[in-house]
Amino acid sequence: MTTTPRIVTVRQNILKANDHTAAENRQTFEAAGVRAINLVSSPGAGKTALLECTLRNLSAQVRMAVAVGDLATENDAARLRQWGAQAEQIVTGTICHLDAAMVQNVLEKFSLNDLDVLFLENVGNLVCPSSFDLGEAARAVLISTTEGEDKPLKYPTIFNTADVVVITKMDIAEAVGFDLALCRENIDRACPGVPILELSSRQGTGLDKWFAFVRRQMEVAR
Amino acid sequence: MTTTPRIVTVRQNILKANDHTAAENRQTFEAAGVRAINLVSSPGAGKTALLECTLRNLSAQVRMAVAVGDLATENDAARLRQWGAQAEQIVTGTICHLDAAMVQNVLEKFSLNDLDVLFLENVGNLVCPSSFDLGEAARAVLISTTEGEDKPLKYPTIFNTADVVVITKMDIAEAVGFDLALCRENIDRACPGVPILELSSRQGTGLDKWFAFVRRQMEVAR
Repeated sequence: MTTTPRIVTVRQNILKANDHTAAENRQTFEAAGVRAINLVSSPGAGKTALLECTLRNLSAQVRMAVAVGDLATENDAARLRQWGAQAEQIVTGTICHLDAAMVQNVLEKFSLNDLDVLFLENVGNLVCPSSFDLGEAARAVLISTTEGEDKPLKYPTIFNTADVVVITKMDIAEAVGFDLALCRENIDRACPGVPILELSSRQGTGLDKWFAFVRRQMEVAR
Repeated sequence: MTTTPRIVTVRQNILKANDHTAAENRQTFEAAGVRAINLVSSPGAGKTALLECTLRNLSAQVRMAVAVGDLATENDAARLRQWGAQAEQIVTGTICHLDAAMVQNVLEKFSLNDLDVLFLENVGNLVCPSSFDLGEAARAVLISTTEGEDKPLKYPTIFNTADVVVITKMDIAEAVGFDLALCRENIDRACPGVPILELSSRQGTGLDKWFAFVRRQMEVAR
């Protein structure tokens, strides 16, 4: 592994540049009075499904839009636009995460002054997005009941940067033998004291606390 | 995104170094008569569960061992050792994939001449592992029925490098409203003609074709 030191140096430079751009994004969001929420999870944990529920139920109270990252396809943006919200796709190609520059580039497509909350739906990946600040006000990490209770211990870097952890697909928890207490314990070990919500976007259960979290974003001054 | 060209150059150098080490690994495996199988998937798609089934059922016919990558914990290696096979954990820290050097470093712990198949269980990640050849003879990509049928289109780079695609958790396909025909169609679009297996490690159904795939590795001369 003779290349390791060089990789680390380059990685640090990339992250430093990213942090600089993220700080600019954060200023832009604050100036416009927009709260950005970065959603991260494994592929298929239900980020888009949760956003669909959120747009459907909260649009009368919160002015929302979405920037969504994927390696390929515009599928998610199309799904989200069905609910009347602006949704812009960021196609990342082979890049495994959103970075602050990608977000900065897409911001010109939004009228930020007319928004309360901008969701940044990250690429489905439990590792790399943890290192890239996008300038968000809050980071929501989703974990589905089908992934196994051990994931917070196996992917600690993403969980310990969470402002809220959302356990999704609670409707099939029993069918997959999900141990909720153990999962909550492991989340708390990875990120002591982080709020943990449990819900099912498909059944529409447990959404109230998530909606309250989103609404609260409007009210919080940093 | 002014840093992009530099990132790409560095990435190419890293990949070039990786390919060199992967070629060395491949020679080592071939000299020892071992077939290495690289297992990749999202977190929680069931790589370890499938390997547990495989060790339990095939150990009389195939001499197997596992090197397993995770950011943190030795949990998976401990799970696999229960079935009497040698399992070595590679703790990757913040690195989101196995690379050829990590595999090369762990090989000294194995008596390769006494093995037929060495499984390389990758970090759970549908993006980054696609770029890193480990020197494997075959790459198996797992997708679970809970992740959504669109994943092969959204993560094309991993699917189009697959030698076999395994659809896992078929026992809950109906409960999660999984559309098998659509998923197969999307896999075939991402990687035309790739063999697709469907199974449930928990119910023990559909495993025969996977076992046949593993056994065939012993018989194939590259």
